[in-house]
Amino acid sequence: MARNLARILGGCGSLVPFMKTPACPPRNSSSIPPARTLVMLFSKSRDFSLPNSSWGEEMMRLYEFYNGQSDVETEGEENQGREWKRLPSYNRSLKYATGGVYLSKIIQSKARLFTRNIREPGAAFEYVLFINKEKERCVCVFQAGHLLEGPPGHVHGGAIATMIDTVTGTHASAISAPVMTANLNIDYRSPIPLGSTVLIESTLEKTEGRKLYISCKVTSTDGSKRHTDATALFVSISVAHLLKG
Amino acid sequence: MARNLARILGGCGSLVPFMKTPACPPRNSSSIPPARTLVMLFSKSRDFSLPNSSWGEEMMRLYEFYNGQSDVETEGEENQGREWKRLPSYNRSLKYATGGVYLSKIIQSKARLFTRNIREPGAAFEYVLFINKEKERCVCVFQAGHLLEGPPGHVHGGAIATMIDTVTGTHASAISAPVMTANLNIDYRSPIPLGSTVLIESTLEKTEGRKLYISCKVTSTDGSKRHTDATALFVSISVAHLLKG
Repeated sequence: MARNLARILGGCGSLVPFMKTPACPPRNSSSIPPARTLVMLFSKSRDFSLPNSSWGEEMMRLYEFYNGQSDVETEGEENQGREWKRLPSYNRSLKYATGGVYLSKIIQSKARLFTRNIREPGAAFEYVLFINKEKERCVCVFQAGHLLEGPPGHVHGGAIATMIDTVTGTHASAISAPVMTANLNIDYRSPIPLGSTVLIESTLEKTEGRKLYISCKVTSTDGSKRHTDATALFVSISVAHLLKG
Repeated sequence: MARNLARILGGCGSLVPFMKTPACPPRNSSSIPPARTLVMLFSKSRDFSLPNSSWGEEMMRLYEFYNGQSDVETEGEENQGREWKRLPSYNRSLKYATGGVYLSKIIQSKARLFTRNIREPGAAFEYVLFINKEKERCVCVFQAGHLLEGPPGHVHGGAIATMIDTVTGTHASAISAPVMTANLNIDYRSPIPLGSTVLIESTLEKTEGRKLYISCKVTSTDGSKRHTDATALFVSISVAHLLKG
């Protein structure tokens, strides 16, 4: 398995362009990396949900607020019992990347996660998600960049839908992975100015068999302005379902 | 007015990077372009709904099918009475660009229309819209690029929502501009593989005062596979509404 993976990989740059350089073995290395090394390569991909220079004051304030109440992941140690946990975010769907049917497709492909496909910090979607321990709530701090325009000076309705799908979908996946979006119902109440930071809150309403019903709201960071309300329905699936298309 | 515009503009490159070079006056020109010239600059922006080298066979076939049934816009001439009309697509919301309150904001801003913010042809949203003469139907041929990924190998639910908002919103605008999205309700039935071409059809169901009710479906190009169903509600607004935020 490791040998086949190494042949497909042919150097890690093509797969994970945002990977930190020290994690990438030299191209001319004669040793074939074992499967464990490959897993490590994936885990060293850039985590886009960490602060960068484009994050404004409000984005940083809210990140620090929730991060201060979050467990820090440390291998082999127990959770510190805090209320929240920050969720990392990469520019691929990496859940199948450590094995399984999609591995070769992922390695060969130039595909990038829609919300993380722009390299310039701050230009598009800047966001970080926190999930609470009991997994009944998820909160996302979202800063909308200048490439997300719809109505002049305001965020595109599709970009808002994208963030709602991302937050509620990540929430559903944390409860019952993998899932697919079955329905999104979005009420747009007040436009979001480009450049502003908003809060997106996702709440699990109920589960019925393979179905997860989630509600979601987008508000100003002080909660005084309701921008968007939404409900989302997700269905747990098998990987075979996705293969069928 | 023209003098102020010229000062804000300071060279057209920052505003319309996709503009054809011959339309852009030299930076060191001592003459201040009159308002008419500025209008011309906007009208010479790149039209993204024309074929490029990334368009696959299916995209080109359907473009030619609808384009062959469309009127060609020629100044001062009457419509040829054909069934469809192709709608151009730029990388800004240009409707306020020839005057009005948003002019200086647009000129100074780096903002780009969400669906047209990637320079590499074929990497993200490739699409062309046609509207029928009575404006009760709109059809969009959409080719999904590799930067739109959600589930591995498939289009992100948010990218599909973005195209539905774009097609139904463009349709609503053609009937009653300007409009804002009030509701999107989307049923995801079958995932769309990255790289594939699909048809998005928008139908006006009814109008009630300032409200426009539109239905939408996303299918395979032969109509045999239903990927997505949606309804959309738009509300006619005044520009003052958008200014209030």
